Amino acid sequence: MKSREIHLKTRPDGLPKTSDFELVETDVPLPENGQVLVKNLYMSVDPAMRPPLTNGQTKLNEAMPGGAIGKIVESKNDAFAVGDHVLSRNGFRELYLSDGSNLERIDLMGEPLTTHLHVLGMTGLTAWGGLLIIGKAKEGETVFVSAAAGAVGSTVGQIAKIKGCRVIGSCGSDDKKDILINELGFDYAFNYKDANIRKELQKGAPEGIDVYFDNVGGDHLDAALTVMNPRGRIPVCGMISAYNNRGARSTGITTLSNIIYSQVTLRGFVATEFLPMKDRFLMEARQWLSQGKLKYRETILNGIEKAPEALIGLFTGLNTGKMLVCISKK
Amino acid sequence: MKSREIHLKTRPDGLPKTSDFELVETDVPLPENGQVLVKNLYMSVDPAMRPPLTNGQTKLNEAMPGGAIGKIVESKNDAFAVGDHVLSRNGFRELYLSDGSNLERIDLMGEPLTTHLHVLGMTGLTAWGGLLIIGKAKEGETVFVSAAAGAVGSTVGQIAKIKGCRVIGSCGSDDKKDILINELGFDYAFNYKDANIRKELQKGAPEGIDVYFDNVGGDHLDAALTVMNPRGRIPVCGMISAYNNRGARSTGITTLSNIIYSQVTLRGFVATEFLPMKDRFLMEARQWLSQGKLKYRETILNGIEKAPEALIGLFTGLNTGKMLVCISKK
Repeated sequence: MKSREIHLKTRPDGLPKTSDFELVETDVPLPENGQVLVKNLYMSVDPAMRPPLTNGQTKLNEAMPGGAIGKIVESKNDAFAVGDHVLSRNGFRELYLSDGSNLERIDLMGEPLTTHLHVLGMTGLTAWGGLLIIGKAKEGETVFVSAAAGAVGSTVGQIAKIKGCRVIGSCGSDDKKDILINELGFDYAFNYKDANIRKELQKGAPEGIDVYFDNVGGDHLDAALTVMNPRGRIPVCGMISAYNNRGARSTGITTLSNIIYSQVTLRGFVATEFLPMKDRFLMEARQWLSQGKLKYRETILNGIEKAPEALIGLFTGLNTGKMLVCISKK
Repeated sequence: MKSREIHLKTRPDGLPKTSDFELVETDVPLPENGQVLVKNLYMSVDPAMRPPLTNGQTKLNEAMPGGAIGKIVESKNDAFAVGDHVLSRNGFRELYLSDGSNLERIDLMGEPLTTHLHVLGMTGLTAWGGLLIIGKAKEGETVFVSAAAGAVGSTVGQIAKIKGCRVIGSCGSDDKKDILINELGFDYAFNYKDANIRKELQKGAPEGIDVYFDNVGGDHLDAALTVMNPRGRIPVCGMISAYNNRGARSTGITTLSNIIYSQVTLRGFVATEFLPMKDRFLMEARQWLSQGKLKYRETILNGIEKAPEALIGLFTGLNTGKMLVCISKK
C-alpha cells in the first residue's frame, strides 16, 4: 500500500525551513505473521524535536520519529485487534508495520482521542512530573511558567492552580495573555515581547518565586534567577529560545550566582523518567479533565505534508495549546 | 583595653582596593557579669565575603564579620574558662566581648588550632557536604573541581580521591598544578589561564564528568555543562569569577540546555545546611587527617591590618590552600 512520510533532508541552521524536509512516497507491504498494519490518525509536534535535527540524532533520509496515535487496520498479531488505538513513536508517516513491541494500546474512557497526545499523554505527564516531582510545588507557593500558552505550559499552570499555588505565566501575544488570565485562571500573565521580564516578575510575584518551570531558557531564566526564593526549584523542561541556535546555545545567563545563597536547584528532566508513575498521573488528570478543572486547546494542521510547517510554527508562535497534525480523521 | 578592627569604608566596584577598608582603634571595656573577653588568634578569609561588600549585607563603618578562632582572656561566665579556645563569626577585630551565645568551644584533639578554620572547620564542612551530600559523589565516578588549589577545592579533591573517584582539577598557575598532581594525588590538572577549558575537560575526563564542584562559575561552568554525564550533579559552592562584578554577574553561560536531556542537577548550597551533620564530618575528617590522607596548605598573613590584603589576594591568586590572617600568635 502507498504511504507518505516526512524525511529530514538537510540539517537546519537557525529556524528550520520547509525545504529542509521532504515528503516521500513509499510502499508498505501487508503484515506478516505477528505483525500489524497501523494507520496514523494524529501526531504530536514538540519543541524537543528541534535540537536532534541539528545535533545528528534525527537521521537524514528516513521517516522522522515522533509521538502519534494510530489505528490498527490489519492484524496478524493476537495482542491487537482491528480498530484498536495505539500510541507509538512512529509519527511523521501515514502507515507503518509493527510487531507490536513498540506500541501501547490506549483505552479510551470517553475522552477525545487526541487528549492522549497532550493532557493525558506525554505532554500532561511532562507538566505533572516536572511541576510536582521535580519542582515539588506545594500549596501556597508561587509558580512561574514560561511559554505558558503552549501545551506543557498551560497544563503546568492549571495543575499548579489545582494544587493551590499562585501562578504567573509568560507568553508571546496579548491574545494568549487573555487566555491565561480569563480562561485558564492564571493570577498574573505578561506578553514578554513588550515587557521587561524582571520587572514583570517583581510585579506578578512580589513575594518571590518558589518554582520556575522553565520552557524557554535565555532571558526568562536570567530574570527568574534574580527573584527565586530560598530553596526554590527550577525544573528545566526545555529551552525553546535556544533551540534554533547551533548547539542549542542560549543567550548568556549571567545571574546564576543567585542560586548559591538561596540554595536554589535547577534540574533538567525528560518525561520518560515519570513513566513508572503514569497510572497515578492518568488517574489524577482524568479526574481533573472530567471535572472541567483541566482545560486544553489544540492547534491542528491537516495532512502529513503539513508536519514541517507545524514544527516550524512552534517557534513562531503559531500554536495556542498543543500543536497537532491530523494525518487521517478515521 | 585598646583593640583594632577592620571596617568597610566604601563599597567596592570591581576588585576591592585596600583603601575601601579602614583600620580603626577602639576601646573594649572589661567584661561584666555573664560576659567573656575574647582575644582573636586567627581569622578566616573567604571568597564568599566579597558579594556582601557590594550588595549591602556587610555594614559600613563597623567591624566586619567573619570566622575566627579566639582565646578567652577574661571570663565572668561559668561556661567559659580563661584559656578556652572558641570559634565565632567575630573576625576582623583583635578583641571583643561576648555573652557566650555566639561562641562555640573547640576541643583540640592534638591537631593544630588553625585546622578548625579549614579542614576541620567550615571549609572542610563545605567541601564534605557539597561533594557528598549535595553532589552525591560515588566510588568510580569522575569529579571535576575548579579553584582546586584553594582551601575548599583542595579538600574536595582529596575527599573525592578517598571515596574512590577519578579527580580533575583546575587552577591558576603551573606551580599549583604541580601541587594538585604530585602532592594531593589528583588524576589530572590544568592551569586554566593558558588552556581551553572544554578541551582540557575532554582530555582529563574522556568518559565525562559525574560531579562538577563549582567554585568559579563563568567559563568553567559553561565548559563543564557540555561534558556532564547523564544524571550528573553540579553542587554550586561559589562563583569567584563573578564576585567582583556588579550583582555578582558571571560571563554568560550559554550551554545550560545540556542539562535537559542529560537530566543534570545544579544546586547552590551554603555550609550551614550541613551543621546538623557536623559530628559525622568531624569524625571522618579527623581520621583522614591523622592518617595523612587529608593534607592542607595555609597562606598566613600576619596582623589584623593585613586582613584587607588577604581578602583581595583571594581574587589575585595569592593563596594556595586556606587564606588566614594571624591576629595574635597566643
